[in-house]
Amino acid sequence: MSSDGFERRPVIAIWGVGLIGGSLGMAWRRAGVASKVIGIGRSPLDEAVRLGAIDGYTADPAAALAEADLVVLCAPVRTIIRQAAEYAAFVKPGAVVTDVGSTKAEIVAAWESRLPEGAAFVGGHPMFGREVSGVANASPDLPRGCRWVLTPGRCATAEAVATLTRLAEATGAAVLIMAPQEHDQRVAVASHLPQLVATALAAGALEADRRAGGGVLDLAATGFRDTTRLASSPADLWTDILLTNQPNISAALATFRQALRELERAVELGDADAIERLFARAQETRRRLQR
Amino acid sequence: MSSDGFERRPVIAIWGVGLIGGSLGMAWRRAGVASKVIGIGRSPLDEAVRLGAIDGYTADPAAALAEADLVVLCAPVRTIIRQAAEYAAFVKPGAVVTDVGSTKAEIVAAWESRLPEGAAFVGGHPMFGREVSGVANASPDLPRGCRWVLTPGRCATAEAVATLTRLAEATGAAVLIMAPQEHDQRVAVASHLPQLVATALAAGALEADRRAGGGVLDLAATGFRDTTRLASSPADLWTDILLTNQPNISAALATFRQALRELERAVELGDADAIERLFARAQETRRRLQR
Repeated sequence: MSSDGFERRPVIAIWGVGLIGGSLGMAWRRAGVASKVIGIGRSPLDEAVRLGAIDGYTADPAAALAEADLVVLCAPVRTIIRQAAEYAAFVKPGAVVTDVGSTKAEIVAAWESRLPEGAAFVGGHPMFGREVSGVANASPDLPRGCRWVLTPGRCATAEAVATLTRLAEATGAAVLIMAPQEHDQRVAVASHLPQLVATALAAGALEADRRAGGGVLDLAATGFRDTTRLASSPADLWTDILLTNQPNISAALATFRQALRELERAVELGDADAIERLFARAQETRRRLQR
Repeated sequence: MSSDGFERRPVIAIWGVGLIGGSLGMAWRRAGVASKVIGIGRSPLDEAVRLGAIDGYTADPAAALAEADLVVLCAPVRTIIRQAAEYAAFVKPGAVVTDVGSTKAEIVAAWESRLPEGAAFVGGHPMFGREVSGVANASPDLPRGCRWVLTPGRCATAEAVATLTRLAEATGAAVLIMAPQEHDQRVAVASHLPQLVATALAAGALEADRRAGGGVLDLAATGFRDTTRLASSPADLWTDILLTNQPNISAALATFRQALRELERAVELGDADAIERLFARAQETRRRLQR
């Protein structure tokens, strides 16, 4: 067995060759870790071939899943969940299946319960992205330096996790391993909460501008722009993420609301010391990010 | 009378020669619009002289105010308010007093009620800044392209507003004129609300990280970083801003909370259409910022 855990360099199938799937295909092909990278998509993927993301493609998921040693699911979260019912049975014994979805518990549950004996599911969340989508914006350098969370399902072998770790590291990413539910709790705070706050801030400002008869957004400077940057995120991808992480998101929102209420009360009471204490806690978070 | 509204090029006194005051002094000296720029400060301002922000300095505010045709108050907001009681009486008749504070109603009220007959107060908010402070980080190019709000007090003459408009435009800024209360309502949404939200998000995440036994901040990526960037802002300056704009901030927070609650309810109900409508409103705000 070679050092990547397969008998030979694996055949990798990437289902959904957009920004993320395309960048991974490019990185793996450049690193020479795959014997072949197959794209799966409903429409022809000639551009992805031309850009070096895949060696070839098929519109037949069952055929590709039967051939692949590693399957990487790169559709939106709820699509990945739906794919399990129809396609998990086609995965070949010994294969490892992973995904790149932004929430993990529902995906892992859906897939690992339906895989044939001998196949393993290890959820994945490579934390890179861009504000633009599509394989035309993919690059083999995007994964470099990013964190790539792996969330093994209950039936995942240590060998499957080690294999995926090596393939993730071959792209330059740093692997973190945790339980799916642990991942989802953490990203509810670190990722989903900022998205909701940015969207609510931008939507609320629009309402305030309308009520004031205009003029509010004219005074928006870099602070407002930075704080609402995430509000430009695509609604369809985020709907999938939010709807597959509801209880964790509610808990994260409660913690945020508590901090905001404390801050508001300090302002209402004219309590400068309390304001400074809250700012100090927030600044501690910023210092930890810089480490 | 020259085109800048004074009989001769004005003597400008800048009280507080840090990032903002220093940059304005540099810009005005470079543009040649002042006959002299005097810095006022408790400690020696030799660095500001060396950097070209001022021609000279004094530790005696009364003397500088008695000489200046234009006085620019550049202390933190509540210091500017306190300065009025002790020093407004020293301003000479015919002079124009302005400031660079981030809230306007309390400053305008404090100063215009105490100025001698014939002197005018026109509040100001040049909307530029950096994440670092001090005259060493000042530059005559910082004001270029920024918006500079002028908020004339009830006793400000049209001539005083015109004079300040010309001096502001000489730095490359674009002047907007509005009532002090109008300014404060607008910045409560466009500036103070993002600050509070960023601070609460960062402070709340620290609490969530602590409760989870760590690991949350490790998953913070660019989205979290951008959305909390303002949380690094200095607490002392912000305490002054927040405590001089309380009712407007409460109103802005109510509008934000309403939008956040709508978003949370849509997530709880699994209502994808409602989520997409809220994202669409937020994206409309982002599009308007880009115009």
